[in-house]
Amino acid sequence: MKKIGFIGLGTMGAPMASNLLKAGYPVTVFNRTASKAAPLAEQGASVAPSPKETAVWADVVITMVSNDESIAEVYEGENGVLAGIRPGTTVIDCSTISPALVKRLAAQIAELRGTFLDAPVTGSSPAAIDGTLVFMVGGSAETLAQVMDLFDTMGKKVLHMGDNGSGAVAKLAHNTIVGINNLALAEGFAIAAKSGLPADRFLELVQLGSAGSKAAELKGRKIIEHDFTNQFSLALMLKDLKLASALTDGSGIPAPMLSLAKSLFQSGQTQGFGEEDLSSVVKLYEAWIGKQIGE
Amino acid sequence: MKKIGFIGLGTMGAPMASNLLKAGYPVTVFNRTASKAAPLAEQGASVAPSPKETAVWADVVITMVSNDESIAEVYEGENGVLAGIRPGTTVIDCSTISPALVKRLAAQIAELRGTFLDAPVTGSSPAAIDGTLVFMVGGSAETLAQVMDLFDTMGKKVLHMGDNGSGAVAKLAHNTIVGINNLALAEGFAIAAKSGLPADRFLELVQLGSAGSKAAELKGRKIIEHDFTNQFSLALMLKDLKLASALTDGSGIPAPMLSLAKSLFQSGQTQGFGEEDLSSVVKLYEAWIGKQIGE
Repeated sequence: MKKIGFIGLGTMGAPMASNLLKAGYPVTVFNRTASKAAPLAEQGASVAPSPKETAVWADVVITMVSNDESIAEVYEGENGVLAGIRPGTTVIDCSTISPALVKRLAAQIAELRGTFLDAPVTGSSPAAIDGTLVFMVGGSAETLAQVMDLFDTMGKKVLHMGDNGSGAVAKLAHNTIVGINNLALAEGFAIAAKSGLPADRFLELVQLGSAGSKAAELKGRKIIEHDFTNQFSLALMLKDLKLASALTDGSGIPAPMLSLAKSLFQSGQTQGFGEEDLSSVVKLYEAWIGKQIGE
Repeated sequence: MKKIGFIGLGTMGAPMASNLLKAGYPVTVFNRTASKAAPLAEQGASVAPSPKETAVWADVVITMVSNDESIAEVYEGENGVLAGIRPGTTVIDCSTISPALVKRLAAQIAELRGTFLDAPVTGSSPAAIDGTLVFMVGGSAETLAQVMDLFDTMGKKVLHMGDNGSGAVAKLAHNTIVGINNLALAEGFAIAAKSGLPADRFLELVQLGSAGSKAAELKGRKIIEHDFTNQFSLALMLKDLKLASALTDGSGIPAPMLSLAKSLFQSGQTQGFGEEDLSSVVKLYEAWIGKQIGE
């Protein structure tokens, strides 16, 4: 069986690594905050002292961290993945990072005669736990076929998007829609609430009508209950919208809805809602209409 | 059985009137373009020479026309509904019009000792044909209860939103979300397409992921096939966004996503896509990225 090196044991990475262990793969883990490796060690994982040592041992290296800066450190740092991989190693990054960084890493790994897949996911931590993530993958079809067993263990669906970088692009385009749809919901709620309409009745309408969305399904009830417990933070949404903006700026296409969405989530961050759920962006509107949705 | 006067026999009104006839109600119809009344006459409807004559005869008057101007003419014109209704007449407007006009009509009808409901619908012509429309109703609960049989004949669900005007507000807030969600989809498609991602794979991702929406479900495949056959026209969406803007301007709340959406649909109208389906707004993006989505 393939030996898996797994780097990044956060809310998403830990259950993904755990599912690989449960499926019987030998797994060596690394996490910057070492204590997070303990539960995986209890499940039978080895713990490596660095990304480099993780990569030296592994046939397949999987990384799942939070942003471009962390990924650059994990791969290109002194004891990084690039210092450890051998010819033939397959490297899979499941983080949401910029397509530009994906391409830089893919080129470096190709020079080392390894192969690289950018494979970000959709689905939050329950899906990571259940092994029902959806992966969008950039890289060669042959490489993908060779590691399909791993994706099947961690997820329910794999969508091959094209060459390296296309997984990252797909994720940013996807999350752009998520951000905008959540703002649409917030703005609709605000218009209805300002005129005194009952929020629950309005949400029922949205879900019955052509305004329905996953955003309404996932967040509508929570907005009414003012429950902004973090499922996917406003700060992470803002990060993704900034990456998407950098992408559209770089390729020279207007993305007016994205630009405005980024500004509004930035306002939410500036006002201190960054660590709440992204749906807390509705609080901007509540300040504007002078009342709380659902009250 | 209640005698129904039905005014406005377009794509929506004709099947709604037809369903009332099938349910056995005596129906008198009026349409500005008289030829559209012929199919209803064949099904047993009487044809009146004016809105006034329709109202004189009816216990309940239902109107379904396209905009504020038409409604003002139908109600307040020389041979309009207001000239014909008797004390006790119930008047139901199912058009999408401004809450301000709703309130003006409700006041005039109350003076004539009639009652008024603003009851716009969601669901396009197939739902009108199947009798599965969703009504959002503003007006008194007593009046609504008295005509619930009619709503049950024409639709599958009635949501009482509050006093007169609140049905109209609900519709505008709902369609604001529809417009924004459709732009989110268009912009996501554009970002993906610019980077060469396959549109069908990207749509699959959207629908599996948290970016999913009724917009994606109803329009995604059609955008890929460049099928902009009118289901709900871009011109009508623009009309609704303008009404929603007038509402938010009037109540003094910022609605930045709505404002931008209105500008983009206005661009679509200006470029000549008004009579195509609202999803044709994606053609703005196709011009910007220099390629057609799905090719």
